[in-house]
Amino acid sequence: MKWYQDKNVDDGIVISSRVRLARNIKKYPFPPKISTQQAETMIEELKGALLNERTPLGSQFKYIEVNTLSANEKRSMMESHIISPVMVAKTEKCGVLIKDDETVSIMLNEEDHVRIQTIFPGENIDKAWDLADKIDNLIEESVEYAFDEGCGYITSCPTNIGTGIRASFMIHVPALEGAGQMQNLVTALSKFGITVRGIYGEGTEAVGSIYQISNQITLGQSEDEIIKNLKNAVNFVKEQEVRFRENLIQNRKVDIEDEIYRAYGIISNARKISAKEAMVILSKIREGFVLGILDVPKLNETIYNVMINIQPGNVQNNFIAENNVNKRDEVRAKYLRDVFK
Amino acid sequence: MKWYQDKNVDDGIVISSRVRLARNIKKYPFPPKISTQQAETMIEELKGALLNERTPLGSQFKYIEVNTLSANEKRSMMESHIISPVMVAKTEKCGVLIKDDETVSIMLNEEDHVRIQTIFPGENIDKAWDLADKIDNLIEESVEYAFDEGCGYITSCPTNIGTGIRASFMIHVPALEGAGQMQNLVTALSKFGITVRGIYGEGTEAVGSIYQISNQITLGQSEDEIIKNLKNAVNFVKEQEVRFRENLIQNRKVDIEDEIYRAYGIISNARKISAKEAMVILSKIREGFVLGILDVPKLNETIYNVMINIQPGNVQNNFIAENNVNKRDEVRAKYLRDVFK
Repeated sequence: MKWYQDKNVDDGIVISSRVRLARNIKKYPFPPKISTQQAETMIEELKGALLNERTPLGSQFKYIEVNTLSANEKRSMMESHIISPVMVAKTEKCGVLIKDDETVSIMLNEEDHVRIQTIFPGENIDKAWDLADKIDNLIEESVEYAFDEGCGYITSCPTNIGTGIRASFMIHVPALEGAGQMQNLVTALSKFGITVRGIYGEGTEAVGSIYQISNQITLGQSEDEIIKNLKNAVNFVKEQEVRFRENLIQNRKVDIEDEIYRAYGIISNARKISAKEAMVILSKIREGFVLGILDVPKLNETIYNVMINIQPGNVQNNFIAENNVNKRDEVRAKYLRDVFK
Repeated sequence: MKWYQDKNVDDGIVISSRVRLARNIKKYPFPPKISTQQAETMIEELKGALLNERTPLGSQFKYIEVNTLSANEKRSMMESHIISPVMVAKTEKCGVLIKDDETVSIMLNEEDHVRIQTIFPGENIDKAWDLADKIDNLIEESVEYAFDEGCGYITSCPTNIGTGIRASFMIHVPALEGAGQMQNLVTALSKFGITVRGIYGEGTEAVGSIYQISNQITLGQSEDEIIKNLKNAVNFVKEQEVRFRENLIQNRKVDIEDEIYRAYGIISNARKISAKEAMVILSKIREGFVLGILDVPKLNETIYNVMINIQPGNVQNNFIAENNVNKRDEVRAKYLRDVFK
């Protein structure tokens, strides 16, 4: 089972918890200055550090050489949160180590030499941090990281210097978004030192009322302080979202019921549908289940899994043999009708 | 059973066939010059001519005094095609004789003293004309019509002088409308001497791709010629609509399937819906059944009966005890969900 197939992703305001650590190896030039030969040696060294018999993790990981994949295969991995948009765009030698349940992915030679990512369903940031920290230590047994006593870990981009940590929650806030409160939320969270981003991180769009909130600063705070601060922020978000949901139920009950049931009617009947419209509708359906409004049979999959499956790259990869882009909207609609049958 | 509950209303391009005859009684001043006292006498005289034992029709008719009804009751009768928008607006003494199946309604003291209307489901203009003619003769046995040897029947509005006949078909032409062909159709039909009007006749809007086509001229042609000409016109419309439907199926099959199934998804799930949106959606569903695209259980009612039932006056009249206008959209949605269950 993948993490996004765990029913915890559908339960509350928090879909998932993620920790990402940026690291570099002292003896190699930083990307993009590293040569192909050096990158190859560096990747082999890191694979060796993890895929060995000393660690129980080893057998659960596989390595994928990303630069040799098709654009669509890369996109599909990005849609499942395995690799970053930066790695999708990369043509130089690079790869990723993936744990079988996809809770861990370690990108090699992305913007930094090593990007350790851990993701867990629901509100589990401590678990994500513990695991990321363990993997970090495991790698450090084999290699020497680029580290400065004054600054901490050295990274390609100065915004990551220090702890190199980005901790984030993926949140679903339809009531706040529906009430036009997102700008207020962004302003309020910036006072906690928290950034609000789109569903696939920096520079990506928020669709289906799904956002990522993460720490702005990596320097001058310990990892534990950063995570504690993020937890305070998510509690604030949850309080606000709950308040606006109550407001909605009290003042616009029929309107919201109408929106949710229309969404259900469309998704279980449409013959073609874009990824963007499907996300908006799946968001309404998640809202309908969470609010206890949508009285229809539960799905056999998590809604977040469906959200990943209907992304363009995944539709192309999983459902269509020939590379016929025009058929995507029809195939997506057919898949959704089956899910909601 | 009312005429709009007969399954013939859903079968083809032609929903119904209608004949209307405008007549006035020689000895009374024409509306609006007729006094209340005179109108009362005139109405009693006409009721006497029809509601008597000599005629088998008598027992099937009832009389309703329209000017004493509430605005909503009048509107509801207009929505069922029993009275005209002109009579709804009228505050002077006026009434209507209605046959139990609503195939005949005889408005008294509307724009003219007598307006005989016959409507039949499907393509049955000859039947409508025969019956209107019979009723016309029956009335003429008792009263003397205002008639001029040169002009024919004298009417309040000069556009009706002569035969006083308006023969019309109510047509459903979603493919022509969808292809943006309505203006072309209006131009083409005007060459036959045929006018295109909205669903409730002159000055009303076309909703749900439903139009009335009727003869423009009442003078200088016999009733039989007028009806023959209208039949030619409707054959032309049918050919065009079929051509555009074939075109649609050939070139935009998935699009039209998508539109039809989305319409079905919305109407069977919405929690509030306006009359206008419901008409657009019911039109799509009628199209879906006619094209053989919509594979869902058949309704227990005709679609045209549903179309009449969801009009604002009927929703208010039939489903809501208290006069709460805001509840209409919710009650309409509930009724439609039950129909499509």
